[in-house]
Amino acid sequence: MTTELIDLVDARVSPTGQFDILSKYEIHKLTDTSRGPENTTFRNCALAVLNCGNYQDDGKELLEQYADFNISVIPTERSVKLKVCNAPASAFVDGRMIQGIAEHLFAVLRDIIYVRSEITGDPRYDLVSAQGVTDAVFHILRNAGTFDRARAPRLVVCWGGHSISREEYEYTKTVGYELALRSLDICTGCGPGAMKGPMKGATIGHAKQRDRDGQYLGISEPGIIAAEAPNPIVNQLVIMPDIEKRLEAFVRTGHGIVVFPGGAGTAEEILYLLGILLHEENKHQPFPLIFTGPASAEEYFFQIDRFIGETLGEEARSRYQIIIDDPQEVARQMSAGILKVRQFRKETGDAYYYNWQLKISTEFQRPFTPTHENMRDLALHNHQQPYLLAANLRRAFSGIVSGNVKDEGIRNVEKHGPYELRGDPSLMKSMDTLLNSFVKQQRMKLPGTAYKPCYRISAE
Amino acid sequence: MTTELIDLVDARVSPTGQFDILSKYEIHKLTDTSRGPENTTFRNCALAVLNCGNYQDDGKELLEQYADFNISVIPTERSVKLKVCNAPASAFVDGRMIQGIAEHLFAVLRDIIYVRSEITGDPRYDLVSAQGVTDAVFHILRNAGTFDRARAPRLVVCWGGHSISREEYEYTKTVGYELALRSLDICTGCGPGAMKGPMKGATIGHAKQRDRDGQYLGISEPGIIAAEAPNPIVNQLVIMPDIEKRLEAFVRTGHGIVVFPGGAGTAEEILYLLGILLHEENKHQPFPLIFTGPASAEEYFFQIDRFIGETLGEEARSRYQIIIDDPQEVARQMSAGILKVRQFRKETGDAYYYNWQLKISTEFQRPFTPTHENMRDLALHNHQQPYLLAANLRRAFSGIVSGNVKDEGIRNVEKHGPYELRGDPSLMKSMDTLLNSFVKQQRMKLPGTAYKPCYRISAE
Amino acid sequence: MTTELIDLVDARVSPTGQFDILSKYEIHKLTDTSRGPENTTFRNCALAVLNCGNYQDDGKELLEQYADFNISVIPTERSVKLKVCNAPASAFVDGRMIQGIAEHLFAVLRDIIYVRSEITGDPRYDLVSAQGVTDAVFHILRNAGTFDRARAPRLVVCWGGHSISREEYEYTKTVGYELALRSLDICTGCGPGAMKGPMKGATIGHAKQRDRDGQYLGISEPGIIAAEAPNPIVNQLVIMPDIEKRLEAFVRTGHGIVVFPGGAGTAEEILYLLGILLHEENKHQPFPLIFTGPASAEEYFFQIDRFIGETLGEEARSRYQIIIDDPQEVARQMSAGILKVRQFRKETGDAYYYNWQLKISTEFQRPFTPTHENMRDLALHNHQQPYLLAANLRRAFSGIVSGNVKDEGIRNVEKHGPYELRGDPSLMKSMDTLLNSFVKQQRMKLPGTAYKPCYRISAE
Amino acid sequence: MTTELIDLVDARVSPTGQFDILSKYEIHKLTDTSRGPENTTFRNCALAVLNCGNYQDDGKELLEQYADFNISVIPTERSVKLKVCNAPASAFVDGRMIQGIAEHLFAVLRDIIYVRSEITGDPRYDLVSAQGVTDAVFHILRNAGTFDRARAPRLVVCWGGHSISREEYEYTKTVGYELALRSLDICTGCGPGAMKGPMKGATIGHAKQRDRDGQYLGISEPGIIAAEAPNPIVNQLVIMPDIEKRLEAFVRTGHGIVVFPGGAGTAEEILYLLGILLHEENKHQPFPLIFTGPASAEEYFFQIDRFIGETLGEEARSRYQIIIDDPQEVARQMSAGILKVRQFRKETGDAYYYNWQLKISTEFQRPFTPTHENMRDLALHNHQQPYLLAANLRRAFSGIVSGNVKDEGIRNVEKHGPYELRGDPSLMKSMDTLLNSFVKQQRMKLPGTAYKPCYRISAE
Repeated sequence: MTTELIDLVDARVSPTGQFDILSKYEIHKLTDTSRGPENTTFRNCALAVLNCGNYQDDGKELLEQYADFNISVIPTERSVKLKVCNAPASAFVDGRMIQGIAEHLFAVLRDIIYVRSEITGDPRYDLVSAQGVTDAVFHILRNAGTFDRARAPRLVVCWGGHSISREEYEYTKTVGYELALRSLDICTGCGPGAMKGPMKGATIGHAKQRDRDGQYLGISEPGIIAAEAPNPIVNQLVIMPDIEKRLEAFVRTGHGIVVFPGGAGTAEEILYLLGILLHEENKHQPFPLIFTGPASAEEYFFQIDRFIGETLGEEARSRYQIIIDDPQEVARQMSAGILKVRQFRKETGDAYYYNWQLKISTEFQRPFTPTHENMRDLALHNHQQPYLLAANLRRAFSGIVSGNVKDEGIRNVEKHGPYELRGDPSLMKSMDTLLNSFVKQQRMKLPGTAYKPCYRISAE
Repeated sequence: MTTELIDLVDARVSPTGQFDILSKYEIHKLTDTSRGPENTTFRNCALAVLNCGNYQDDGKELLEQYADFNISVIPTERSVKLKVCNAPASAFVDGRMIQGIAEHLFAVLRDIIYVRSEITGDPRYDLVSAQGVTDAVFHILRNAGTFDRARAPRLVVCWGGHSISREEYEYTKTVGYELALRSLDICTGCGPGAMKGPMKGATIGHAKQRDRDGQYLGISEPGIIAAEAPNPIVNQLVIMPDIEKRLEAFVRTGHGIVVFPGGAGTAEEILYLLGILLHEENKHQPFPLIFTGPASAEEYFFQIDRFIGETLGEEARSRYQIIIDDPQEVARQMSAGILKVRQFRKETGDAYYYNWQLKISTEFQRPFTPTHENMRDLALHNHQQPYLLAANLRRAFSGIVSGNVKDEGIRNVEKHGPYELRGDPSLMKSMDTLLNSFVKQQRMKLPGTAYKPCYRISAE
Repeated sequence: MTTELIDLVDARVSPTGQFDILSKYEIHKLTDTSRGPENTTFRNCALAVLNCGNYQDDGKELLEQYADFNISVIPTERSVKLKVCNAPASAFVDGRMIQGIAEHLFAVLRDIIYVRSEITGDPRYDLVSAQGVTDAVFHILRNAGTFDRARAPRLVVCWGGHSISREEYEYTKTVGYELALRSLDICTGCGPGAMKGPMKGATIGHAKQRDRDGQYLGISEPGIIAAEAPNPIVNQLVIMPDIEKRLEAFVRTGHGIVVFPGGAGTAEEILYLLGILLHEENKHQPFPLIFTGPASAEEYFFQIDRFIGETLGEEARSRYQIIIDDPQEVARQMSAGILKVRQFRKETGDAYYYNWQLKISTEFQRPFTPTHENMRDLALHNHQQPYLLAANLRRAFSGIVSGNVKDEGIRNVEKHGPYELRGDPSLMKSMDTLLNSFVKQQRMKLPGTAYKPCYRISAE
Repeated sequence: MTTELIDLVDARVSPTGQFDILSKYEIHKLTDTSRGPENTTFRNCALAVLNCGNYQDDGKELLEQYADFNISVIPTERSVKLKVCNAPASAFVDGRMIQGIAEHLFAVLRDIIYVRSEITGDPRYDLVSAQGVTDAVFHILRNAGTFDRARAPRLVVCWGGHSISREEYEYTKTVGYELALRSLDICTGCGPGAMKGPMKGATIGHAKQRDRDGQYLGISEPGIIAAEAPNPIVNQLVIMPDIEKRLEAFVRTGHGIVVFPGGAGTAEEILYLLGILLHEENKHQPFPLIFTGPASAEEYFFQIDRFIGETLGEEARSRYQIIIDDPQEVARQMSAGILKVRQFRKETGDAYYYNWQLKISTEFQRPFTPTHENMRDLALHNHQQPYLLAANLRRAFSGIVSGNVKDEGIRNVEKHGPYELRGDPSLMKSMDTLLNSFVKQQRMKLPGTAYKPCYRISAE
């Protein structure tokens, strides 16, 4: 990249939230952090937060563009400040950082430190058992202040692509608007496209209903945040340590899920959720799940639906509805579905703010590292229970997402060539058909750029 | 109009705000109101409020379309409810009225009753003297709860057309967004176009700055509300009894004014304000006034600027800035200007929430009824002080607005033909040039409809 | 009184509550008020408010002691201030007026002005009909901000003497404490003794239950306030225009009544309430009424109970309970009684904050002026319905209270000798016995001063 | 003690504060706690909290009286409850625990768990260094929610005896009242007497000033809480792990200290504070310190003042004022002193909520265990710096307090006889004089019981 003119700003930012009141010990610890190995993670996440609004498709580009960006924690008499150098100017108004962005910066700092000192760094935590992971996810979310005991179930998770068409984007806004008119809140993975639209629409919907306390929860993770920077409407940002805990956070805090058109990432999320819902212990849990988009997205969901039918079967298909081009109906169905969730939680005495009862087996919790070897060794065959097959298919798509947009994945593919996926011929055929349809629909990259596949499919 | 299918709803609406706690006497009085002569005004305003979102260019169409619409106040044991029949379905979500719209309905009821019983109907009020009118405007606004003693000056009035191009509309949104990023609030005359855009933009700006108490003040009046229905983002709606009190409310509550492109109505507002600012006693008052629009609007402001120079002179031109295609600069200049307003109010001990010191002479307060006779008799000549000439030019444009979009004006012109405007040739020429440029720019009606002038200009 | 050294202070007090935001017209009107005839009433009430803490038994003494006290409303640029001269120093802390006292001063001003301009001075008000008076009482209370639509019934009116023994005073504190532990609020007539004790006790009880919004409503009137100055714990002070509206305010806002030992004033209040409850239309209204005191007060209530039985009969006796020396039981019974009130209001759709359904006939609403002639002409005989007899007995006691402690009454008796009371011998005998027991129990004046009767009883 | 009839209650109490939202892991841990060794501490503290109001002089009596009392943490679906058996009935109103007492119970649980799991049980904490202890005290207070960043300095620590005369008690109430009238808050060690009076007085003072957010901070520790049960006005209760951290909490959170008459405990607190203030590094710190009492307490402070002069010298005497019988003057001086504290903190950039700059050397932080051996070995001689002598004298008085009122101390003295104190003859004489004056003034035990000294003084 040639050095074009980028507007850069240096500034100091005062703390918000829990960094207001610190002990000398904590000030010391924080200042140290910004010199230690976590600092790379913190720096990269912070850059993504500051660059919101200027969306780029892959994180690598962003990091290269702001190579001189620097952030550090500096001590004051009784707290700390953040010092940023060569930061994107768009994060500032007349020299002052936009408050929402400042809050996001400190949210990033908060979660990175909490995870290190209280979760991974604490011998008391058992991160091997399913219960231990579920507790960890809970503690990260609670520490971030996302739980409100007095709030009825009303959080709708919206999944979908960050690189969707204008028409699809407008559709996600309308759905968000209709959800908010029915007093529902929005949770997304941050980022542009289907992750920003519902929040923008909901902002207007909540304003019209005089609902001043709308929740806009964004859940990200260090590996994806550069490509999916949180938009500043997000009023609760949480950085989970890895993609599996991020997914668990979605399904345990959300009371229902809407899936908009997307690409490989969206398919990954769908497979993750269906894999969980197919588990014996979750059979009786109400969990509203709606796939929706404008008329032009009908083909996308037709392909997904076909793929699920061919691989996971009819039971899987019974767990979702597909609603095309009808935002009001989506909102009405979601509202009705969440009412059933509320009754179920009430009857079983479970919390409204966290779905403790949902069984998530370790297959869905263990981080999957998409090396070329791991991708090649995935058990993509039919001789396993559907929920396990879903888990493996999920991993395959996770790897493809990584190769498409994540910094490390891109580097790996640049170095070793495309990932190889092997498995039962019927499965491989279904998968190939689906992926090809994504490519044809321009759902693998920002439209306009030619897509060069990061994977190769071969039947065994 | 043929009877097409319109979705209609019947419903009962529970009171908000000051109608919560009523005496038997008040319940009786309210129930009566909805049978008396005020009911027509109330019904028509209520219909406009309910129809927000479905913008129509003139009020007459609206009234005809919903000829069967009916609203009445019905008593309950300790308060009242509103009963609506054949109301536009768009005001409801799954059978429940949108909260913001319900608040607007009761705001309309509140102001109509207050004006009748406490202002025009109260012998203690002196509505002839300038001070009496200014007090009345104050009392209506205070009764509506718009004053906040603890709030620093931050209210920007946005004027401009309701029938502007998409490009201009997007521009007003960006300006509203940039104003809100600088902690400024928005006041408009309600309605679509330049009156809605800044509020939508500001909603996002305030959300990003975590400014939860943004003020979105809409000031309307019974004669215009049908054509300029309040959008539900307006969180404080006030219905002034006539257009002159509405204008006075704008200039006494606003701390600065941004004028976007519009048509005759916008010209009327500009002339009103300049007429006031030209008064000797207002010379030292800081009052930030900015005309702005995208590049395509440059011609519009060029024409306005030329007209002002030709008719009111250089002093008038010194009271405003024209900024083309630079929303950030607009917001920065407004922010700086309001800082000066704050200092001035502080030094002179005046209230932040109401500009008591601004001199508004009775020429600008007395309602002008645009009959054909009154229009013909306007003193449109140069042998008067500039501020008086501004007052008369203002009346001329007021009449044209009425003939264009107001129910009564449209009927009058249908009956008696176009208004006749007479005056000094140079003035008439300036005026003709300006109005022709409005027609050419399609600023007299919603674009797409052919404009048939409601006026005729003849030099004396 | 010789001029002893009294600490006096001059000061200016900034407005609270609704005087924050005023129009020029209102500033002018307020400033005028403090020069007009209302100023005497305002001055005397203000003096009482300022002198709280230094209780005196009669208002006359107070007025004489602070003969040079002066208060006036002075205009500022956008509101008003109160200017006090020669005010009691006890109202100030290091030169600043105690906030609770400042609020009381402005409450006095608010109510005097409201009554004059909106009630007695407004031709729209009908103060002759029962409904008109009830509406007026409602409007004064609402204007004072005492109604809270969201509050469950929990207001206990406490009546009783202002000159009671230390033991009785401690008892009233304990009852207030026990009521507050059960989430009940206190309303009294302001003043010392049984009117202050329950509020002090309740302050501690509410603090222990973390009940931060305890209501301490004080209802006074210009004729009594000098002798019964509001203690600053009162966080809502209302000045009703006369004693009858004050009594109506008690019984329509309170959800139950506790009567502590007192003297003639307490007897007046009991007769007023029983007269109302005996009315045919009120027979089915639940209205918890408890007479209570320490063991030493048993004789007092024995005499009252006997007098009621002899004059009004058994039905009257069935409307109250007498509980001696058991504060917890008082609170438990009141709590249970108010639950029934709540159910009744819910079933009949009546408001929680105002008992609209209670029938109060005009006999209990019409102000009674205790001239010597009016007192002599009272119909004190048995040939009338019990509720009417109660009304007349109430008037007799009202006159005695006036002769004992009110400025005007004291002057009248000084001038014309004691009031003469005439009636049926059996009634007169019951009354004489009761009044003698009050004198013997030292309940007519502050203990320690010899009581000189202001009345003379003669059978017809 | 014979088994007399005590009213006992069994109940379950729902959590308040941070126990609202728990993870499965935490629920498990909490339930376990109530079975482990901490449970004895928790049980004894809980009993003290529940028994507030029924003051007893020594903790031993309390524990014996309620030998069957039991408390345990029981799990619910998503949180925990406390189950109490055979609890004092006075903590309940009609079967429901008083809210303030329930909050205290959970505060006790919170602090005991926090100290164990986050302070003493966390290898990251360094409890040997002065900075480590200061950080620990800070973290316990912050976890208890006592810090408010937006609050100006206004916290007055009140020290003094729990067994004082009625006259002294009333005096402490008046001082609390006068402090609250000047917008100051109260912090005490909980318990009756001089620790309860100021809070009761302040409750009324804050109510009169409409100061709804008065802070009533109580700081206790497991060894003393049984004898000094927190009164329910305390709206922030903190249980520090030992007496030294409790003292450090007092001097770092308080902005000034008022000392009322007391006994050995009060002398201990005075010596602790003077020892700190005498340190070289604290010389320039403003720290308002006032000894005050009614006229009858003059002798007490005369003896203290003499003792300080004889042992620590004139510099120590210059750090406090003695004000006899003038509550207003106390409040005025304290208010003025705290203004200086505010300026100092502002200039040096230190926090308002925690005095980080105050140097407290390890002599004052290290817990002192008053065994017979430790008491005998105290270095009570003049060949040391005054601040060290103060530290050792402090320990001597700490031991005497333990022998007088603490469970363990009483048992020790019962077993081994009185403590022996040895040192320089002149010091021993001063000390003997002071202690004798305490005994003579009946300040060693609740008045009425004969005092049997728990110490023996012998010069070396």
